[in-house]
Amino acid sequence: MTRTDTTIAAELIRILPAGRVITDPDVALGLSHDQAAWGPVGTPAAVVRARDSAEVQQVVLACLKHGAPLVPRGAGTGLSGGANAIDGGVVLVLEAMDSILEVDPLERIAVVQPGVVNDDLRSHVATQGLWYPPDPASSPWSTIGGNMATNAGGVCCVKYGVTRDYVIAAEVVTGTGEIVRLGRRTAKGVAGYDLLGLMVGSEGTLGVITEITVKLRPLPPAGVVVVGSFAKTVQAGAAVRAARAAGLQPAALELVDRHCLAAVDAWKNMGLSTEGEVLLLARFDDAEAVTDAERMLECFRAAGATLADRSETAEEAEMLFAARRLAYPALERLGPVMTEDVCVPIAAVTEMLARIDRIAQRHNVTIANIAHIGDGNLHPLLILAPGDEAKNARAHAAFEEIMSEAIDLGGTITGEHGVGLLKQPGLHRELSPAVLEMHRAVKRALDPAGIFNPGKIFDAARS
Amino acid sequence: MTRTDTTIAAELIRILPAGRVITDPDVALGLSHDQAAWGPVGTPAAVVRARDSAEVQQVVLACLKHGAPLVPRGAGTGLSGGANAIDGGVVLVLEAMDSILEVDPLERIAVVQPGVVNDDLRSHVATQGLWYPPDPASSPWSTIGGNMATNAGGVCCVKYGVTRDYVIAAEVVTGTGEIVRLGRRTAKGVAGYDLLGLMVGSEGTLGVITEITVKLRPLPPAGVVVVGSFAKTVQAGAAVRAARAAGLQPAALELVDRHCLAAVDAWKNMGLSTEGEVLLLARFDDAEAVTDAERMLECFRAAGATLADRSETAEEAEMLFAARRLAYPALERLGPVMTEDVCVPIAAVTEMLARIDRIAQRHNVTIANIAHIGDGNLHPLLILAPGDEAKNARAHAAFEEIMSEAIDLGGTITGEHGVGLLKQPGLHRELSPAVLEMHRAVKRALDPAGIFNPGKIFDAARS
Repeated sequence: MTRTDTTIAAELIRILPAGRVITDPDVALGLSHDQAAWGPVGTPAAVVRARDSAEVQQVVLACLKHGAPLVPRGAGTGLSGGANAIDGGVVLVLEAMDSILEVDPLERIAVVQPGVVNDDLRSHVATQGLWYPPDPASSPWSTIGGNMATNAGGVCCVKYGVTRDYVIAAEVVTGTGEIVRLGRRTAKGVAGYDLLGLMVGSEGTLGVITEITVKLRPLPPAGVVVVGSFAKTVQAGAAVRAARAAGLQPAALELVDRHCLAAVDAWKNMGLSTEGEVLLLARFDDAEAVTDAERMLECFRAAGATLADRSETAEEAEMLFAARRLAYPALERLGPVMTEDVCVPIAAVTEMLARIDRIAQRHNVTIANIAHIGDGNLHPLLILAPGDEAKNARAHAAFEEIMSEAIDLGGTITGEHGVGLLKQPGLHRELSPAVLEMHRAVKRALDPAGIFNPGKIFDAARS
Repeated sequence: MTRTDTTIAAELIRILPAGRVITDPDVALGLSHDQAAWGPVGTPAAVVRARDSAEVQQVVLACLKHGAPLVPRGAGTGLSGGANAIDGGVVLVLEAMDSILEVDPLERIAVVQPGVVNDDLRSHVATQGLWYPPDPASSPWSTIGGNMATNAGGVCCVKYGVTRDYVIAAEVVTGTGEIVRLGRRTAKGVAGYDLLGLMVGSEGTLGVITEITVKLRPLPPAGVVVVGSFAKTVQAGAAVRAARAAGLQPAALELVDRHCLAAVDAWKNMGLSTEGEVLLLARFDDAEAVTDAERMLECFRAAGATLADRSETAEEAEMLFAARRLAYPALERLGPVMTEDVCVPIAAVTEMLARIDRIAQRHNVTIANIAHIGDGNLHPLLILAPGDEAKNARAHAAFEEIMSEAIDLGGTITGEHGVGLLKQPGLHRELSPAVLEMHRAVKRALDPAGIFNPGKIFDAARS
């Protein structure tokens, strides 16, 4: 490389401190995709690991100068291909910006760099009796920046909401290469448009997030866990409806289906699958937890639960949640798992599960289900077969049909994982042409050069 | 008027059903402004009371054709001039679109037209044991559409959040005259940009809201009210900080200052002002209400409260809140009240109150204060003098300085009332030029013809 090398890679090496541009091809390759099961992965011109906002700004300015696409990424735990590299572009890795800059227990806020791992933030603030609620399954690895970019959810959002409900301010490098602050540190505020909310869930297509201020809550107690086995899925649906009607507000309300239970039993021999075809798990974490747990047990029994029990100790609570925790790794023993993510009205959950069963049969694919049933958010888990292209094509077809059925039931193609590359066909079915056109207009407004993660979520060019 | 009359008024009379265009000049005048104390009020070319989305669309299309500005309005209870008419434009009144279209107790959602009055929605859903939390002081008159357009708050948002936290879907007539649906009916969803959140608080500058879907919660009990009198404002500040540190989560936490107490005493002789210079009121509404109320009393007493008590009955609870409820009408006996609205960090509330006192002295204006202190959201109440232009000019200057001090303390110029016309100078001080430019870009993207409430919030043309 000489001074006359005008490629963006050469310029980035020139303008950034030593070591920021990753030259090891294997490392660069590992940073060029997320955990999506399929979808195109491009070959980037450069992979950069930035250390501060000024470096991020330099990368953005270089991309503007060269017209190069920029893909920001955190830990790469996404499941929709949102962080997949684009040919000739720059992958901007933010995981080294991992400082917790401030925790203010009076205001109940934390200020973090985007690369802070979700669980690291949680354990850090827990020492001050505080809690950051959003808890995606990826929390041991995923970053707050990635969580913000995808508006990540998790188990506890049935009571406590999603990432969007906790992000109150951010520093962002914009499509014109400026460093701006959006939102505010105060509890309330309506000064101008909610541009911050627009950034949440925009999957890196509107700017690069370089600092995040989140709300915290007082740390709740571990709580009481209730478990119920049901011979029929429709009975579990009835139990959930009865709990809603009773005004119960669990901090988690999860469903684990027969395929998951069988996989856990095959691995751990817990005898779960003999009790019925579906397990419900609820957690209550407030002052009324024991009373509410008893009321939930009544709902379970009235709906015909073959087994219904609640935890007496924190250890028992953990143990009762084991089936949920072990479901995913148990299924992975059967093959690579493709995680779907749809959300339907509560009333439609059992019908959606029945339709998923029919899709599985039609395409001869095993589809297990875990669900944040309290939110109507289902995660059908499609078991793939490495090397078996025919089977994987059938799984791909099933994946599309699940989205279509969710739309048909008044739901959405993605409850918490985002659109990325994999769900674009579904997005175009869910949103009207006029709404897609509004997306394109906003994209052009905030990213006039079209450098930020182009081709993700929707096709920005089509008009 | 003949067929050759090409004015927008003539066209609207022609295309809309009889009676939609308001011809009575007094009625039209009354619908041409909100309740802001100052700010320009234009003379509209037409005032239209629409009955359905199709009529709204026709009005938008007519405005596009004529290049006429359109000001949507609900009940006109806004305090920032956001609904003030624009010369030669159309005022589009949505209060006749006042149907509650659906209440779904299982999904806990309601679908309403924009003209439904906040309290009407609350009393309607209460019959099904459900609750719509956002409770602006205007709730007996203000509409859900207006609440959405301004992202209205209220007393209970310290625990339950603001309008933005409850709006999950809307039908909107866009800047290209299309009727679109934004958001979704499901509990979660991340399919595309949060264009719905962008509409919330956009004060009619990005589209006309024609239908709204809101989340509901189970109706909480009336709860327990705690009251404390403090000789010094700083003691009240200490009590609030102690309650935060104790992890207490009141459903309301209000401050009433000495000016308000004196005005209430002068009217109702309740003896409130003899106890101290500030009153704190808290409400607890969950299962632990009595216990939490006792803990709050401890915080009050430890901070030096001269009097601290809690309600034993629902009637007592109502009575103890009387000072808060009567403060505003008591002040109105002294003259027209200009309501300020700033929000600062919790830690800065007492300093902000001290600065407001100094501003009042400097400008020789009476400024009373009520505050949603649990959110750091202050409402300084400036007493105006009809006809005394010099005094009103001093009040205006004080109004500006209060915003500047809020920004200086890390706060915002508006916690819940919006920017409209009155707070634009403050907005330009709060937001950076780059962020204002992002606002303009988004405005141009979604309202390319610039017809929606131009000149409100910010100057869209300046670039």
